[in-house]
Amino acid sequence: MLGLMQQRPLLISNIVDYVATWHAKTEIVSRDPQGVIHRSNYGEVATRAKRVANALVKLGVGHGDRVATLAWNSWRHLELYYGVTCSGRVLHTVNPRLFQEQIVYIIDHADDGYVFFDLDFVGLVEQLAPHLPKVKGWVALCDARDLPAVKVGNLLCYETLLAEVSPDYVWPQFDENTACTLCYTSGTTGNPKGVLYSHRSTLLHAFAACAADGMAFSAKDSILVIVPLFHANAWSIPFSCAMCGAKLVLPGPKLDPESIYTLLEQEACTKAGGIPTIWLNFLAWLDANKGKLDLSKLKLKMIFSGGTAAPRATIQKVRDDLGIFLLHAWGMTETSPIVTLGSPLAKHENATPDEIVDMQVKQGRQVCGVELKLVGKDGETLPHDGQSIGELKVRGNWVISGYFKGEGGKVVDDDGWFGTGDVATIDPDGYVQLTDRLKDVIKSGGEWISSIEIENLALLHPDVFEAAVIAIPHPTWQERPLLLVHPKPGANPTKESILEFLSTRIAKWWMPEDVVFVESLPHTATGKLLKTELRTKYGGAVAVKG
Amino acid sequence: MLGLMQQRPLLISNIVDYVATWHAKTEIVSRDPQGVIHRSNYGEVATRAKRVANALVKLGVGHGDRVATLAWNSWRHLELYYGVTCSGRVLHTVNPRLFQEQIVYIIDHADDGYVFFDLDFVGLVEQLAPHLPKVKGWVALCDARDLPAVKVGNLLCYETLLAEVSPDYVWPQFDENTACTLCYTSGTTGNPKGVLYSHRSTLLHAFAACAADGMAFSAKDSILVIVPLFHANAWSIPFSCAMCGAKLVLPGPKLDPESIYTLLEQEACTKAGGIPTIWLNFLAWLDANKGKLDLSKLKLKMIFSGGTAAPRATIQKVRDDLGIFLLHAWGMTETSPIVTLGSPLAKHENATPDEIVDMQVKQGRQVCGVELKLVGKDGETLPHDGQSIGELKVRGNWVISGYFKGEGGKVVDDDGWFGTGDVATIDPDGYVQLTDRLKDVIKSGGEWISSIEIENLALLHPDVFEAAVIAIPHPTWQERPLLLVHPKPGANPTKESILEFLSTRIAKWWMPEDVVFVESLPHTATGKLLKTELRTKYGGAVAVKG
Repeated sequence: MLGLMQQRPLLISNIVDYVATWHAKTEIVSRDPQGVIHRSNYGEVATRAKRVANALVKLGVGHGDRVATLAWNSWRHLELYYGVTCSGRVLHTVNPRLFQEQIVYIIDHADDGYVFFDLDFVGLVEQLAPHLPKVKGWVALCDARDLPAVKVGNLLCYETLLAEVSPDYVWPQFDENTACTLCYTSGTTGNPKGVLYSHRSTLLHAFAACAADGMAFSAKDSILVIVPLFHANAWSIPFSCAMCGAKLVLPGPKLDPESIYTLLEQEACTKAGGIPTIWLNFLAWLDANKGKLDLSKLKLKMIFSGGTAAPRATIQKVRDDLGIFLLHAWGMTETSPIVTLGSPLAKHENATPDEIVDMQVKQGRQVCGVELKLVGKDGETLPHDGQSIGELKVRGNWVISGYFKGEGGKVVDDDGWFGTGDVATIDPDGYVQLTDRLKDVIKSGGEWISSIEIENLALLHPDVFEAAVIAIPHPTWQERPLLLVHPKPGANPTKESILEFLSTRIAKWWMPEDVVFVESLPHTATGKLLKTELRTKYGGAVAVKG
Repeated sequence: MLGLMQQRPLLISNIVDYVATWHAKTEIVSRDPQGVIHRSNYGEVATRAKRVANALVKLGVGHGDRVATLAWNSWRHLELYYGVTCSGRVLHTVNPRLFQEQIVYIIDHADDGYVFFDLDFVGLVEQLAPHLPKVKGWVALCDARDLPAVKVGNLLCYETLLAEVSPDYVWPQFDENTACTLCYTSGTTGNPKGVLYSHRSTLLHAFAACAADGMAFSAKDSILVIVPLFHANAWSIPFSCAMCGAKLVLPGPKLDPESIYTLLEQEACTKAGGIPTIWLNFLAWLDANKGKLDLSKLKLKMIFSGGTAAPRATIQKVRDDLGIFLLHAWGMTETSPIVTLGSPLAKHENATPDEIVDMQVKQGRQVCGVELKLVGKDGETLPHDGQSIGELKVRGNWVISGYFKGEGGKVVDDDGWFGTGDVATIDPDGYVQLTDRLKDVIKSGGEWISSIEIENLALLHPDVFEAAVIAIPHPTWQERPLLLVHPKPGANPTKESILEFLSTRIAKWWMPEDVVFVESLPHTATGKLLKTELRTKYGGAVAVKG
């Protein structure tokens, strides 16, 4: 028997209508690439989003068609977020920092009909255009008077497009499972793969983000959105904040500490979200400018950090220097992204500051609305004992069922579980702690050894500058850990001293099979250890020894 | 084009599994009718809810069948909340305070197969049973050793039922629009009508309740649930709190101030929800016991109040005596119930205490997820100017589409709008202020006059004990207000003194056509003015004068 409640589709237009009706005057503040502050509000953004919809109709962009952006965080990008999706088209936010060939690949793969770009990317657009014959037009996000000469076939001006159409448009009603946004993940191997979000997934995710134990977005908030709008929908903040009417502060491309500080102070920001590197630099700059700043003017209450794990020292410094809480988040593009958040429990009410940091360094507890489980090497579900190491698997309404156009094949099992590739423990309170990537973990004698944990311990040795652990084949144990050490300048550590140092800190069966000293370690463009290269170079060679 | 995110049904079992997995040890504290404290937790409640499901299977209760409760707020009632709904049956929470004939009517109308009752209601059950031949069994919510002799056909014992079945049960998956709970509204006219909630409506409503700007439920909270589980699903708190793992404190039948105070202190309650009368009595008791209490022991941070408007004095006293915030809520059984909540905006950060109370006395802002509009006499949408008076209309996923079994006919218009019967203004910040019930408003010359506002002003006259305003027919103006006054003992006010008093306080066209002095005014069982009786007695008679 069905209930007798209304069944209305969960659409992004619900939340855009909500802010337009109830929070029309709440500000949307942007800083353009030149550093000029632009002030808009939800009412204006929603009205201009309707102009975007009419402009798309005029351009012949149909329901479900993809529209790309190459743009910083700004009010115009936000208008596209709302106008493209609410009208039934799909917004494809392209990361302009990708390699040019990757950008060409994904715009082509997505069949983007139009590309909306910031003027910062004129050079990029001119390089891309010859390779993208399917793109019908390139729309510069600027006024007519600022429109530069761009060497592309069909150059259009955003403000002219909007001025030529009416702001009258009624958001259409359609199936809540309709696609709304598209983001490509840039894996370390193979081509990027597209994650195609739906209106339903976006609204349910936004509800979870607005929860008191979520990111707790509120109409009282002013949110500095440092995370780019082209990165997993900026953790979906543009949608979550429209659900509650929080003021948005969009910083454009300048993310240096001083620029961030100025916005935090001027716009009375209460929350801010960005990757740990941002906060690391910001805190260092605060130190250097201590005498000149009046921190009491800041209204900041919470910092969100995700992308990679925030170091303990950063979390402590945010607490000590700013007097605020760093909320650790974990998720991925494939999960919209929020899966876990480091919100406290009742027990932390009486915890010591150190115990609270112990909790904060972990990646947080599963939010309600998705499901998370820890799975061992044989597929068995592992206990939440803080010891058992397994892969995190996720399922739920904001988790992918497959990549765009079927790339990568079947990515969830028959019960809907998606393997994240992240290896972790879960403690009895439910806090997840990432220990490794699945591809980097060492499978020894049927058990898993965390490469990252050995690396972190090796780093505590006074002579070690950097360390990497990879798996090497072993006739008895299948795999064993190999430790690669880049010593500090002038230091000359021995294998014995390193192993002795580790022996008091890790279990015997975790001990590296060997230690190899290297002059440097290879890194990816984003600074992560390039273990594939290490495995090619050292994995096989040492195996013979084993 | 559809998105490529998973589509999993929104089911109450999602949140019950969530708390069972992540908050198993979080306490569910109940006080039984004898005042004995019972301690359970989400893990136990969830396990016993599975026993409930197996017991229902054994009893032959099928998918979609209704199961009734006549019970106070307790862990067993909570187990039924979860076990009945998650297994696909429908929980019908019956208000034991209704007239006996009404209870017979609704249990019969709902086709309840089994009735689960607290021992407090043995007498009631014995009176009901002969009139309810369709009920197959009466289940006493007690241990076998406490089972009294009850003169009903098929008496069963809850704990025996549970002990006889396995706790192994996998919650079934089904359409998220499946019915889960049933509540009857007791209107002032006609038979009670059933509101049939769905799993989808319940989960979406719970998301809104957990929002930071909602009731902000959190795993850090300990919630005293004073509002009965038989009243609009206790504002859905049992579901919303399972979504975040908040501790629940269920007070049983004793709701006197001392019993409430003891629980607040002992269970470190952070939030509590109940009707204004509860808080009025509680604050008076605090006054009377000031010297004996150490209020600093309380952890209470917020009070929710709904049902009827909380008086300004109560809101101020909650602030001054307890140092906490009273959150005003508005909604109805037909709306799950939350539609508006009095959560502050950014502007209130710098508001004076009086300005904040000005906001708090209103019924709050629309939460995202439902839609609210103010509609004038000709169906036109009215502005949010704080002046325009209209009826509140609501639509959305947790608003009814119709009553159970089609009673009352079509209750929403073609666009899904449900007329609440509440008349209000909405101010420019979006805060709703109720001014009247639609049936009581005076429609004069095409404009609406609030009966309640005139009554409240008349009450300020030193000689007025109670006042009532009803509409009387008028040849020119259609309707005009008639003021009925019950003078204070010994006072002898004149019509002229009353009208003069009002003349400086209301617009000329709002002035009562006449004043009639009466020795008393009729009330409903719940203490509201019985205006139907006044209209019968005075409406016609005075009309002749008009």
